[in-house]
Amino acid sequence: MSNDTELKEKENVNEDVYDKDLLDQLLQDGDIDAFREEFLSMHNYEQSEYFEDTDEEKRQKIFEFLSPSEVADFFDHLDIDDEEYEELFDNINANYASHILEEMSYDNAVDILNELSKPKVASLLTLMNNEDANEIKALLHYEEDTAGGIMTTEYLSLKSTTPVKEALMHVKEQAPNAETIYVIFAVNEDDQLVGVLSLRDLITAENDAYIEDVMSERVISVDVATDQEDVAQIMRDYDFIAVPVVDYQNHLLGIITIDDILDVMDEEASEDYSRLAGVSDIDSTNDSVIKTAMKRLPWLIILTFLGMITATILGSFEDTLSKVALLAAFIPIISGMSGNSGTQSLAVSVRNISTGDIDEQSKFKVALREAGSGLLSGIVCSIILIIIIISIYRQPLLAVIVGGSLTCAMTVGTLVGSMIPLLMNKLKIDPAVASGPFITTINDIVSMLIYFGLATSFMSYLT
Amino acid sequence: MSNDTELKEKENVNEDVYDKDLLDQLLQDGDIDAFREEFLSMHNYEQSEYFEDTDEEKRQKIFEFLSPSEVADFFDHLDIDDEEYEELFDNINANYASHILEEMSYDNAVDILNELSKPKVASLLTLMNNEDANEIKALLHYEEDTAGGIMTTEYLSLKSTTPVKEALMHVKEQAPNAETIYVIFAVNEDDQLVGVLSLRDLITAENDAYIEDVMSERVISVDVATDQEDVAQIMRDYDFIAVPVVDYQNHLLGIITIDDILDVMDEEASEDYSRLAGVSDIDSTNDSVIKTAMKRLPWLIILTFLGMITATILGSFEDTLSKVALLAAFIPIISGMSGNSGTQSLAVSVRNISTGDIDEQSKFKVALREAGSGLLSGIVCSIILIIIIISIYRQPLLAVIVGGSLTCAMTVGTLVGSMIPLLMNKLKIDPAVASGPFITTINDIVSMLIYFGLATSFMSYLT
Repeated sequence: MSNDTELKEKENVNEDVYDKDLLDQLLQDGDIDAFREEFLSMHNYEQSEYFEDTDEEKRQKIFEFLSPSEVADFFDHLDIDDEEYEELFDNINANYASHILEEMSYDNAVDILNELSKPKVASLLTLMNNEDANEIKALLHYEEDTAGGIMTTEYLSLKSTTPVKEALMHVKEQAPNAETIYVIFAVNEDDQLVGVLSLRDLITAENDAYIEDVMSERVISVDVATDQEDVAQIMRDYDFIAVPVVDYQNHLLGIITIDDILDVMDEEASEDYSRLAGVSDIDSTNDSVIKTAMKRLPWLIILTFLGMITATILGSFEDTLSKVALLAAFIPIISGMSGNSGTQSLAVSVRNISTGDIDEQSKFKVALREAGSGLLSGIVCSIILIIIIISIYRQPLLAVIVGGSLTCAMTVGTLVGSMIPLLMNKLKIDPAVASGPFITTINDIVSMLIYFGLATSFMSYLT
Repeated sequence: MSNDTELKEKENVNEDVYDKDLLDQLLQDGDIDAFREEFLSMHNYEQSEYFEDTDEEKRQKIFEFLSPSEVADFFDHLDIDDEEYEELFDNINANYASHILEEMSYDNAVDILNELSKPKVASLLTLMNNEDANEIKALLHYEEDTAGGIMTTEYLSLKSTTPVKEALMHVKEQAPNAETIYVIFAVNEDDQLVGVLSLRDLITAENDAYIEDVMSERVISVDVATDQEDVAQIMRDYDFIAVPVVDYQNHLLGIITIDDILDVMDEEASEDYSRLAGVSDIDSTNDSVIKTAMKRLPWLIILTFLGMITATILGSFEDTLSKVALLAAFIPIISGMSGNSGTQSLAVSVRNISTGDIDEQSKFKVALREAGSGLLSGIVCSIILIIIIISIYRQPLLAVIVGGSLTCAMTVGTLVGSMIPLLMNKLKIDPAVASGPFITTINDIVSMLIYFGLATSFMSYLT
């Protein structure tokens, strides 16, 4: 690699590190040898990037020029929208497609098959060789977002009584097929997990030792039904490259490797983030205007109805409003500040639930602390607001009513924001409902009741 | 491990997998042998968990019972608040502390030193042996959130002309010190990076081959100044276990391993999430009420002032309001819906900037698409709202004014939400300012101007 391209590549890491125009040209010219030489010298990730960016006609040429196993290598890196897999596989000859899936990592093949129609999956499995088809069928049974759904069965395991020398030979043999050879699992006669060792342990071991002498017996494993987010947390905490997946009798079923966990973390972070914003699917940038609107509308329609509750409540205070019109001027600031502090607390609370760093009791302590900080910030903001209102409008009572309402609204707002996700979690309701806009709307209703309740009580002094 | 504890451990992954009470007891009794046996059989991560949960007195006992190198093993996993390191290290004998840091991974030692005061760092470095002190000093020069700031210099590199057999010996020798032995870097005579190979490549290579025969010359490396988020993206895309860090002349300076990247991803996701909620520091659960309030107040005070702009605008429409008090009832729904759709667009826009998946032009296309979807959803929600208002209040003109304002407010809201972070990014202003509450408040001002502008124009027909 010349120093020039090296430098260019680093200025902007997102820039293509391969020559798209050259590859396009070679495909168009049908120059199979030159295309293969250029394409196969690229990293699998770059190959997948090129494939994603290219059109149907060129994709057909690629399938013509490459073997299923060469395609499988970069399909392992493919990152397209879930809905696009169906179309992609409809355009590949079924026999060729089944060979691609055979050659892919089992876990990645399963991820793809999960997006295809049932008849399509059935026909692809029939075309595969029996061994691969059976392994993949077994993996298809697990829920997509559990340890079982993301694990692969291509791992290295050895009986704990194996001599180190023999083990090294075995690792060497299995190297081309295993998902990782850097973590090796030790099992007993019944295939139960009894130990773990790293390749580092193996190559630094005495030559006359046995696996059981060098393995660690304190194995951290995850149950096959464990949520993928919890698996990610464990791998992050322990700095694992791979974690074993077992059934309830401690039989080794598969492994999950760190590269899959990076994707899980990204997925889960996106999910939390979208929830806070009240968007269901944040990452499809190719949707049309209508599709984007259709996705957001259900939420927005619910919020319109909830908003009408606020409107109706305010409507019932029409009398108060028509007598002191200036009260209306402070509606946005009170509802806004209670919404803002509620969203802040919501974010903290959701974060606490999802990282699982603290226990049940502390969570409620955190919620109370949030309310306390809401009260304190409310008082400070209210004092500022009271000073501004008095200096602009010269109406001390109005100022005090607005300020008092702001303090109450912010205290209640933080309490609502931090408690609702906790309660939902306790009641096993999906906390997705407790998204940002929902909390904001609830806080609107509460804060307006406080504000106009106070204002109406002091009505006689105001007019 | 008995099957019982194994099962218990899996029911709740957050439950302690070690016996805290036993360890506490052994420390209290001063039973050094029993404590060492129990503690050293635990995984380093569990050791760090126990240490984090224990009090000062017990910590002193731990330092008494363990060697600096044993402490270093779990300090590599330590995950406490940045502010706590100062106090922690003030309580450790300086000589002992310097030995701990010597024995830690360089990158982790640097992370800790970055949190300590300058005189403290200087005194610790003086006490260290020269070699380690120099390596750490060199790493301390890099910005914390760049490739240089998170890399370590404990990597395996070999001349590309080394025979495979000799290389394997070298790997075996270096195994205890290197951060990873699974990725090996090949350099030329001038220490410039020329190739990369995995341990897998090395152990499956022919015995009489040379490194240059098995290495890949298409090395993906990152510049020492690359932002850590971009490094994370590259490692995720390419499924790397380790990535090399080079200077502008392609000299190998260090490596970044996948376990550090997991922490980076978590950090960056937290940052995006906090921004959306308008919270600066989401993860410290131990802060007092006053500290929490102090952290949020700057933001909330700014928002109070911004809110007063909205209030002043509304105050100038006092005439309109006192004539048609019912107008006030729809203030929250209009400002709320424009805020909600703005936050949704903000989330999409920020996400697009931070993943860097799409180019500059497409970003603006996405912004326009957002506005289009805002218009479309606005029309649908407005129709619903108009029907409800007419059926409750029997005032068609009022309904149309509210509906029309809602459509405009939602269209402008989505446009503001998606454009502001893009513009800030273009103007090189920190997009942190474009947090959720800020966008919501901007949208408040705009939507109220639209609403009361429309209402005042049609005043004569309303009364």
